[in-house]
Amino acid sequence: MIEQQIKSAIRDIHDFPKPGIIFKDITPILKDPVLCDAISTAFLDKIKDMQIDAVAGIESRGFLFGLTMATKLGVPFIPVRKAGKLPYSVNQKIYELEYGTATIEIHTDAFEPGNRILIHDDLLATGGTVTATSELIKEMGGHVAGFSFVVGLSFLKGLEKISAISDNIVVLADY
Amino acid sequence: MIEQQIKSAIRDIHDFPKPGIIFKDITPILKDPVLCDAISTAFLDKIKDMQIDAVAGIESRGFLFGLTMATKLGVPFIPVRKAGKLPYSVNQKIYELEYGTATIEIHTDAFEPGNRILIHDDLLATGGTVTATSELIKEMGGHVAGFSFVVGLSFLKGLEKISAISDNIVVLADY
Repeated sequence: MIEQQIKSAIRDIHDFPKPGIIFKDITPILKDPVLCDAISTAFLDKIKDMQIDAVAGIESRGFLFGLTMATKLGVPFIPVRKAGKLPYSVNQKIYELEYGTATIEIHTDAFEPGNRILIHDDLLATGGTVTATSELIKEMGGHVAGFSFVVGLSFLKGLEKISAISDNIVVLADY
Repeated sequence: MIEQQIKSAIRDIHDFPKPGIIFKDITPILKDPVLCDAISTAFLDKIKDMQIDAVAGIESRGFLFGLTMATKLGVPFIPVRKAGKLPYSVNQKIYELEYGTATIEIHTDAFEPGNRILIHDDLLATGGTVTATSELIKEMGGHVAGFSFVVGLSFLKGLEKISAISDNIVVLADY
């Protein structure tokens, strides 16, 4: 039901961000407040038994439903940001991209050791950033309680990759 | 009441992003789900009579409460993003920074001409990005219905600058 609504809203953009790639544009979802509310509710229903202590949302689009979920669940929201964006002391993780590297950061006081963290982003593709986030959270003493995504592109094998970290994976619309 | 709660949560970071600047770090707010919910409710109470057709949130931190407000209000959320991030066709605005320029973009189909748009960000400083966003929305045929910010730094004169655009300015915690 929600999967079909999401898929109907999503727009395919050909050759973005580079030739040969079909990008799943979620911005039409954001134009529909009833669907946005239904997405938050669907996430909450699927994560409520994961014993989550905090939701980590990956910049920028993971901030969207990440904060909504955390607030509804009554737990802290942890912003996971690109290098140099978080103002307080940080832990960071450098990871490899197709060309070069990228860095993500989390504030050193974002959560307590032993906390169970849900990692959230809008879309799961190859899983590179999500895996780096998982590793950073574990290095900081946290447990990865699970993952949530509005959209998953299973053919890119990200799902396979992160299932080695946690079985609790919520994908509302899978391709 | 909400102003005092926000100010108690905010953390001053000295010399970020550069020497001499005291940065207002809002991340401790995000650790408190009760405060996050109170912030959304306070915004909603203050904007509900502005006849808003859509909420435009400025990347990245304007995505946080921006989507929450739009969903609660029952109107579309418009992501305002840095150049090259939005996948569909865009309108863009180049504006001046202290050194060099920056570019913001909005999807061409983000709203209808005549729509009344609330512009939201987490913090109002000099008002540069917010003013550029206002100009872009007006060029696209929209009306700026008002502005909302979690934090305002009045001494930086951003408030003065944007009050020429709209009188409807919500600042939950003003410095």
